[in-house]
Amino acid sequence: MNIHFCCVGTKAEPWVAGLRAELPADNVNDWTPGAPPADYAVVWSPPQQFLDEQPQLKALFNIGAGVDALMKLRLPPQAAVVRLDDAGMSAQMAEYVSHAVIRHFRELDGYEADIRAGKWSYRKPNLRPEFPVGVMGLGVLGARVARSLAQFDFPVKGWSRSPKSLDGVQCFSGDAGLQDFLAATRVLICLVPLTPETENILNRQTLSLLRPGGYVINVARGAHLVDEDLIGLIDSGHLAGAMLDVFRTEPLPAGHPFWKHPKITITPHTSARTLREETIVQIAGKIRAVESGTPITSLAGVVDPKKGY
Amino acid sequence: MNIHFCCVGTKAEPWVAGLRAELPADNVNDWTPGAPPADYAVVWSPPQQFLDEQPQLKALFNIGAGVDALMKLRLPPQAAVVRLDDAGMSAQMAEYVSHAVIRHFRELDGYEADIRAGKWSYRKPNLRPEFPVGVMGLGVLGARVARSLAQFDFPVKGWSRSPKSLDGVQCFSGDAGLQDFLAATRVLICLVPLTPETENILNRQTLSLLRPGGYVINVARGAHLVDEDLIGLIDSGHLAGAMLDVFRTEPLPAGHPFWKHPKITITPHTSARTLREETIVQIAGKIRAVESGTPITSLAGVVDPKKGY
Repeated sequence: MNIHFCCVGTKAEPWVAGLRAELPADNVNDWTPGAPPADYAVVWSPPQQFLDEQPQLKALFNIGAGVDALMKLRLPPQAAVVRLDDAGMSAQMAEYVSHAVIRHFRELDGYEADIRAGKWSYRKPNLRPEFPVGVMGLGVLGARVARSLAQFDFPVKGWSRSPKSLDGVQCFSGDAGLQDFLAATRVLICLVPLTPETENILNRQTLSLLRPGGYVINVARGAHLVDEDLIGLIDSGHLAGAMLDVFRTEPLPAGHPFWKHPKITITPHTSARTLREETIVQIAGKIRAVESGTPITSLAGVVDPKKGY
Repeated sequence: MNIHFCCVGTKAEPWVAGLRAELPADNVNDWTPGAPPADYAVVWSPPQQFLDEQPQLKALFNIGAGVDALMKLRLPPQAAVVRLDDAGMSAQMAEYVSHAVIRHFRELDGYEADIRAGKWSYRKPNLRPEFPVGVMGLGVLGARVARSLAQFDFPVKGWSRSPKSLDGVQCFSGDAGLQDFLAATRVLICLVPLTPETENILNRQTLSLLRPGGYVINVARGAHLVDEDLIGLIDSGHLAGAMLDVFRTEPLPAGHPFWKHPKITITPHTSARTLREETIVQIAGKIRAVESGTPITSLAGVVDPKKGY
């Protein structure tokens, strides 16, 4: 079998070596234009030309959880798209978000500023019942994040497109449930997939519904958030601040107001990184499964083209 | 019944009001020297004179989890000492420690320094199996912290004086197990009670046993740590750094090297604060239980004077 690796911005050598070690009988190569077509491909933001040269591709394995970039391309119609199914990402996401929530709730930045000023300070503790956290998106990552926050005894709300049920989480769903979800939330965590329906979902109208002192944590995609609406609501005092890991343009352009805003903390898209070993093992396992007769549609992470995730 | 409130450094009024509301039939007062002796007392670092004036005291309720300060005083021999049993502290401790571990493991300070310098940076992710965390002390707080860290998929080790067993935690115990515990640990969390046996337990010899790149989180008492040994091991490169919430003298004296050490993060004893409402409810409930016949020795949090916790 031919397997192409085509991940823009990723050093191919260790990936190709890893895939070869897991799939020794197969022919794994870093794709070059004009190479013979492949049966499977491991991709991240591939060029359109790569896709156009793949008439026999059975599946495209995306090495990230979000396939929004891929879904904007013209895909080989016969190929399934399979996104990464956890592979170490949910633990990272739970870490990043828990860190962000705790840091805000416990006012650790304020304490730290005091310490830098040589001041031993006292702040009245915030009370957990006044800090309900809301997780928007309850897939593999969102569900794990919600569970993590619940074990710190925060009141946890969840919102998803279709109804879900999660222990210890008050769940809302669909367009009808969005307003109630936002109105019940003080710390909002965005973990929905980016689709035409969710683009700009964090805007002046939705963010205004958050409880006073709202805080926004975006770890999904930059295009979920209307940057100037967030800044406006922070500057007017309705929102307390934000921690953002993803941006409309990455790297975040020099001079963008997020770089220096005193109430916005940013990180360079590091909340949940693709872990090479886990990812290779997962993808190789799926290729072996399909080759031994498992229908591709039953693989974890198969994308429904209608939903876009 | 007479109940005295005697907590140095704590505003008495809301505590006395809260205790009166919970125990309306009793006589609750902020202690003043020479006041009639009490049946129960709610204390924090009381003066020796207070204790000397309590010949009929049944129990001293400490409004913190650690009773080390109290145990250094001459106590009324007939009075049981009861420490706070969680009352919202374990969730706070789990938060603080999880935040500290994640911040270090995910190199969030490094990312933040880069962002401040206008740099969008990339760091190779640390691998979880190379970051075993070790929780020293597996009481109510330590056990909760260990569980919290385990749900982030860290390898978790635990150490306690007497053997314990905790799901998902590799447990060590006693003097015999300490060396193996330390040698298996990279991020060390100190949560043991302060007793003559555990004073200075974090010293050059014990901290040298940690895995290279070790990191120390002290949320117990300042006297557990030999300050200059920690600094020496960080400066020599054996340890990567520390996050400290407790100090030998609090507030930390001006000029102490911890204030400005680039690899030491400090907070002003804020890891787990006494929450007034929960604490009042817990203590009032225990007083009611004893008055209705529950033996004091069966209360959660009763201190064994021989052990000192």
